[in-house]
Amino acid sequence: MHAQLTNNGRLLYDFELSGNCHKVRLLLSFLGVECQRVPVDLAGREQKSDWFLRLNPRGQVPVLMDGGRVYWDSSAIMVYLAYSYDEEEAWFPDDVELQVQILQWMSLAQNEIQFGLARARAAHVFGRQVDMEDCRRIADVALGALERGLDHSRWLVGNAPTLADVACYPYVAWPTRGGLRCSPTRP
Amino acid sequence: MHAQLTNNGRLLYDFELSGNCHKVRLLLSFLGVECQRVPVDLAGREQKSDWFLRLNPRGQVPVLMDGGRVYWDSSAIMVYLAYSYDEEEAWFPDDVELQVQILQWMSLAQNEIQFGLARARAAHVFGRQVDMEDCRRIADVALGALERGLDHSRWLVGNAPTLADVACYPYVAWPTRGGLRCSPTRP
Repeated sequence: MHAQLTNNGRLLYDFELSGNCHKVRLLLSFLGVECQRVPVDLAGREQKSDWFLRLNPRGQVPVLMDGGRVYWDSSAIMVYLAYSYDEEEAWFPDDVELQVQILQWMSLAQNEIQFGLARARAAHVFGRQVDMEDCRRIADVALGALERGLDHSRWLVGNAPTLADVACYPYVAWPTRGGLRCSPTRP
Repeated sequence: MHAQLTNNGRLLYDFELSGNCHKVRLLLSFLGVECQRVPVDLAGREQKSDWFLRLNPRGQVPVLMDGGRVYWDSSAIMVYLAYSYDEEEAWFPDDVELQVQILQWMSLAQNEIQFGLARARAAHVFGRQVDMEDCRRIADVALGALERGLDHSRWLVGNAPTLADVACYPYVAWPTRGGLRCSPTRP
């Protein structure tokens, strides 16, 4: 853990297979922001170590360090990056209505997508013990909501990609990696 | 379901025992904003009915109708209310650093607080089948993060209450109602 502070000290505490880290890496790439990646040894529980819990009280990747400040949680990090580096204000537009709509989908990403789709994938990829029937039930809520949200549009909010799409994308794009065959029921 | 549109048509689709609805009712009360409550029959699955899914693709309370627009998700609704009615900008200050910090805790509320504490309470209060050991493990992450976040402060963000505190409060204030005796481990 001796990464050099390059890119104005911008570091992403990262885990290659984490969908939440993937969201942040995607957005960094879309924004053209360079950031040094610092792999965290999740198998060795480094994310629960004293030093890491001082960065993130939740004990999880991703964590972003930028300008000497520390940001945790993929949704919050993405909002920070958009506010800081998205000069065109495309990803998190400066508009209350659009921001509130984006936050709606980010909550879905934190909630049903996490505990439906991501949890099922964690069982499949990392061998975690989970109640797969419970995952499937929650994943159905997530996928049903997304189906309805994308019924008349290619994007979840407005007419262009936003943080809503980036937040929902990874774990939804990897459903079969969770061994799920979801059939969201339409209303 | 024939509520009159009073209070400029402001309606909260609500369920008395829902912690997520409670967050919104708390904030409405703090802001002094009147809002007619429309009870939704969760036991009768009204939240999964066609008409309700057109309001909220996720099929859950709370849903806020205001000015002819519809907002779902407790976190997003609270941000909307703060932007719209908090003239002092105390609850969601117009400051990127503070907003990002608030969003961090709102993610915790959507994620570990929901699937640790709220799920355990749902088992206890509504008789839902859940894996209580899994709830306890996730609740420990939530409560550990909150302990660390409140180590040197009465409030999660800055020196005054914000949406972060409102978002985390209900399900944390009701732990024994979930039958949990959590012992968050300190780092």
